[in-house]
Amino acid sequence: MTTDVQLLDSAEFLASVKFDAQGLVTAVVQDADSLEILMVAWMNREALEQTAELGQAVFWSRSRRELWHKGATSGNFIDVEEILVDCDGDTLVLLARPQGPACHTGARSCFFRRLASDLEQEQ
Amino acid sequence: MTTDVQLLDSAEFLASVKFDAQGLVTAVVQDADSLEILMVAWMNREALEQTAELGQAVFWSRSRRELWHKGATSGNFIDVEEILVDCDGDTLVLLARPQGPACHTGARSCFFRRLASDLEQEQ
Repeated sequence: MTTDVQLLDSAEFLASVKFDAQGLVTAVVQDADSLEILMVAWMNREALEQTAELGQAVFWSRSRRELWHKGATSGNFIDVEEILVDCDGDTLVLLARPQGPACHTGARSCFFRRLASDLEQEQ
Repeated sequence: MTTDVQLLDSAEFLASVKFDAQGLVTAVVQDADSLEILMVAWMNREALEQTAELGQAVFWSRSRRELWHKGATSGNFIDVEEILVDCDGDTLVLLARPQGPACHTGARSCFFRRLASDLEQEQ
């Protein structure tokens, strides 16, 4: 069972997104095929608009304070198939097809470390 | 193809998490079976420790400024199977089994609104 999804046009979608005091929302990138979560980054309005227009992920780099077209340096662009927004408008999910590793470490996903269970820790 | 995962014990895991200036990290809740992304919330160190101990999601409510054991009011607890941390330590993924709708609207997932494609918008 998955969730019934409502379709919003561009104006409705942008109006539904609630940018925070820094003008940002959280963006979760999920592989459209495997559904693996690949990375989490930030977007301002311009990054979101460019992502929708290009069909490739564009984020806001909080450290460099600039728009960041993911892959522009590495070649590892992320093609975006669908963009969803959550109930309170402060988080996006990008269903996407990465052209290479999403993580700057070269890993396919940034989430490559897991808390071992009690049983695993005893081993 | 999915990502090779490294196992960390409790001390290693906690040391790898980088809480922000407000003492928080982003937590993405993903259904362990369907891999659907259910919700995104925030955790401080205590919420993370309680989550690992209870095996149920405990968040930090930024609006109420208190620990929030998800389901304590609604009964819709979220059983947590695995916790992952990303490369730079500022985001967690919880692989989880929800006991009911994750969204306060009653939807299974908070991500029930999608940007229509150009083709869909023309229809």
